[in-house]
Amino acid sequence: MLNTRIILLIMGLLLVVEGVFMLISAGVAAYYGEYDLPAFLWTSIISIILGLVLRYFNRNAVKDIGKREGYLIVTTTWVLFSFVGLLPFYLSGAIPSFTDAFFETMSGFTTTGSSILNDIESLPHGVLFWRSMIQWLGGMGIIVLSIAILPLLGVSGMQLFAAEVPGPVPDKLHPRIADTAKRLWFIYLGYTLAETLLLWLGGMTFFDAICHSFTTMATGGYSTKQASIAFYTSPFIQYVIIAFMLIAGINFSLSYLAIHGKIKSVIKDEEFKYYIGIIFVISLVVAIVIYMSENNISIEKSWRDALFQVVSLITTTGYATADYLLWAKPLIIIMFLLMFVGGSAGSTGGGIKVVRIVLLIKNAHYELKRLIHPNAVIPVRFNNKAVSSNIIFNVLAFIVIYFIIVGISTFIMSIMNYDLDTSIGAVATCIGNIGPGLGKVGPASNFADIPDFGKWFLSFLMLIGRLEIFTVLLLFAPAFWKN
Amino acid sequence: MLNTRIILLIMGLLLVVEGVFMLISAGVAAYYGEYDLPAFLWTSIISIILGLVLRYFNRNAVKDIGKREGYLIVTTTWVLFSFVGLLPFYLSGAIPSFTDAFFETMSGFTTTGSSILNDIESLPHGVLFWRSMIQWLGGMGIIVLSIAILPLLGVSGMQLFAAEVPGPVPDKLHPRIADTAKRLWFIYLGYTLAETLLLWLGGMTFFDAICHSFTTMATGGYSTKQASIAFYTSPFIQYVIIAFMLIAGINFSLSYLAIHGKIKSVIKDEEFKYYIGIIFVISLVVAIVIYMSENNISIEKSWRDALFQVVSLITTTGYATADYLLWAKPLIIIMFLLMFVGGSAGSTGGGIKVVRIVLLIKNAHYELKRLIHPNAVIPVRFNNKAVSSNIIFNVLAFIVIYFIIVGISTFIMSIMNYDLDTSIGAVATCIGNIGPGLGKVGPASNFADIPDFGKWFLSFLMLIGRLEIFTVLLLFAPAFWKN
Repeated sequence: MLNTRIILLIMGLLLVVEGVFMLISAGVAAYYGEYDLPAFLWTSIISIILGLVLRYFNRNAVKDIGKREGYLIVTTTWVLFSFVGLLPFYLSGAIPSFTDAFFETMSGFTTTGSSILNDIESLPHGVLFWRSMIQWLGGMGIIVLSIAILPLLGVSGMQLFAAEVPGPVPDKLHPRIADTAKRLWFIYLGYTLAETLLLWLGGMTFFDAICHSFTTMATGGYSTKQASIAFYTSPFIQYVIIAFMLIAGINFSLSYLAIHGKIKSVIKDEEFKYYIGIIFVISLVVAIVIYMSENNISIEKSWRDALFQVVSLITTTGYATADYLLWAKPLIIIMFLLMFVGGSAGSTGGGIKVVRIVLLIKNAHYELKRLIHPNAVIPVRFNNKAVSSNIIFNVLAFIVIYFIIVGISTFIMSIMNYDLDTSIGAVATCIGNIGPGLGKVGPASNFADIPDFGKWFLSFLMLIGRLEIFTVLLLFAPAFWKN
Repeated sequence: MLNTRIILLIMGLLLVVEGVFMLISAGVAAYYGEYDLPAFLWTSIISIILGLVLRYFNRNAVKDIGKREGYLIVTTTWVLFSFVGLLPFYLSGAIPSFTDAFFETMSGFTTTGSSILNDIESLPHGVLFWRSMIQWLGGMGIIVLSIAILPLLGVSGMQLFAAEVPGPVPDKLHPRIADTAKRLWFIYLGYTLAETLLLWLGGMTFFDAICHSFTTMATGGYSTKQASIAFYTSPFIQYVIIAFMLIAGINFSLSYLAIHGKIKSVIKDEEFKYYIGIIFVISLVVAIVIYMSENNISIEKSWRDALFQVVSLITTTGYATADYLLWAKPLIIIMFLLMFVGGSAGSTGGGIKVVRIVLLIKNAHYELKRLIHPNAVIPVRFNNKAVSSNIIFNVLAFIVIYFIIVGISTFIMSIMNYDLDTSIGAVATCIGNIGPGLGKVGPASNFADIPDFGKWFLSFLMLIGRLEIFTVLLLFAPAFWKN
């Protein structure tokens, strides 16, 4: 029997949490005295009361969370947060269409950053603050999901990617999650504060600094400026953002180790090495091509533009300082391919994840060895350990499903009469939780003109991409619902 | 120690075989009294003499063919055949560029059908005949490769796909291959004759009928007409070609069973059922969209155009009766996705193969079940048998490598300043051994304008696609060359 009461109890808690964070936005709205204050107040109060009521009626729920409840809670959380979180946008009139408000909110909580807004600077501060904060909250959710929950559920080989955070031996789901969450959120908060300060020092207003720190650390990519980071011409600001995007794309467990002085363990981590290596090599190539093909551009600016865009896309942040669709064609394809790579596992980055890509390339190499020596047992090695063939299997299955979904979804987008560039670009950027795509949804455009059906569909892609696909697909399997 | 002498001995035999088939083209050239006769005669004689010399000097080779020799022979055969086979095109002046001649010949032997020719009808008959025949020979090679050789080598799960052809128990490589080859080539020849007769009856000249039968049965797609099959407006001819493309995309072992009266085994074959099912459903959708979106088109013509193009692409033949790039955008994407599916295993069709797609979709479904019941052993079932996880693993690895190569190759094509459509279309059609692509290499255009580097690169893709990827990649693994 599915323990629905514990699910409702937890949803109640989450509603209270969301309501409380919304109150902070209400405070911002009050401070600036803008028209969005009532919308925030009302939604916040209703959300908190509804949450408390849910908790009251389910207070006697058996505190027993099995796997099935775990899966349901994960998906329901993101859906519930989005439906409640859209209310301030919708009720304040900032986003008059319900579909648009949902798209914008799901894009926020999944840390995607694809937007339907055409005139961001005209929005009141409370709305802009909430829009950045939902990404930050989404990032918090992802950290605990990818490091504490999914490994326990055994989804898509995630058990391998979660570097062990020292802590009490996990025998129950609950203490382990709570403990991990506390340790890592503290780091997340610390980074956010540090970035805010640096951006402020660099010349951003305090408001913009905090909003951009929220969306950097979540690898979300929402900006308070229509022109995104291109608005800030200061190299200092751009380098600060590059640095923090880079950090946000690294497994937060490694940050934990680094802070505790175990720098060696960090440097020896294979995913970390590949992550840095890929970024460096590709940025260099892109920088050289930009330098050679554009007139009157300095070496420093070429390198900065290249590095910014490569880091922004591989970490799935999606900030823009340059419109990569105006670059040479091979660079556009590089940017497109980067959308599939994604950040490290256990980071706030989306996409396939560096470790999965590394494992599958290693496995391809080992497949060749296995063909030559069919009787030898040749396991893939990662971080000097043999990886069980089960995990490799899960990873391969994950990647294949990922591309099948991309293929089918590209077709579905094309039904709305989009060309291949736009269709596949929109799909890749949404399932990878990046933000900008190709064609009509490139970095200089947005998702406003997509038909309603397309917006709901892309929102769904953001959700399954963010929750490592299987977590959501599972709910559509009849076997899941059988007792 | 690698037994190079046996490899040379076999190459000698293959040179003789190619020379003899070239003599037939010389006969055609002589019959029509055209300028290509000397080129055919000389190449043929040199090929035969060279082959005999190779055989003479290696007549004492130890008749011991291990796996390594097997792999080398497979790849070398296609490369050697292409370098020798291009000579009549090049020496006769029909294709003045060496690169173009190589591209056209590799495209032939791999049964791809991508062409650099701009004015096919101006070519002499001998050249046209040879161009069709190399596809037919390539098809013969593929049948024996996929049903007899690769299963023994254990490449990419091919052991599963080769339905057992009744015959002597295979304990040695040689008798098994010879036996299978004989049985299946007989069927291949029979189909070719039947199609030739039907096309001739339908109004084609005998010459065109035989050339088109060659390229239909090989799922190659070279036509003697610049307009491809669109040249023939007769519905009868188009339906005949549809029927034989359909047959050529089915595992030839099933044809063997059907001819021996075991129709039930054929109908019960899962890959066959999915193959027919996919074609029927997609053709129906395409036909409905064509009927609704085009003016003055009959139901029959809509259905015929749809069915022709779907069958032509899924079997990787690549004939054209309509320019699908002019269709509605969703249909273009369907056509693009079909390029990845490919024919059945053990057919002459290329691509990923229906059975692999079916296995991976089934596996995805079972992955979900495994997540719900992590301790249960749930094998994927195919044709009512449990498929070993090893084979599923191989299949997943194959598909992932396939898409990695598509990704990297798309980037390489874009370096030549092609847009995404053209780059990915050229790559998908070449690695899938289809023929037409998207954008500038669509069904109404060809590959003539691609730079030389691109032509060599795409030829390489045709080769690795045709030889199930691992067979060729293996030769680049240092471990392969260690004793």
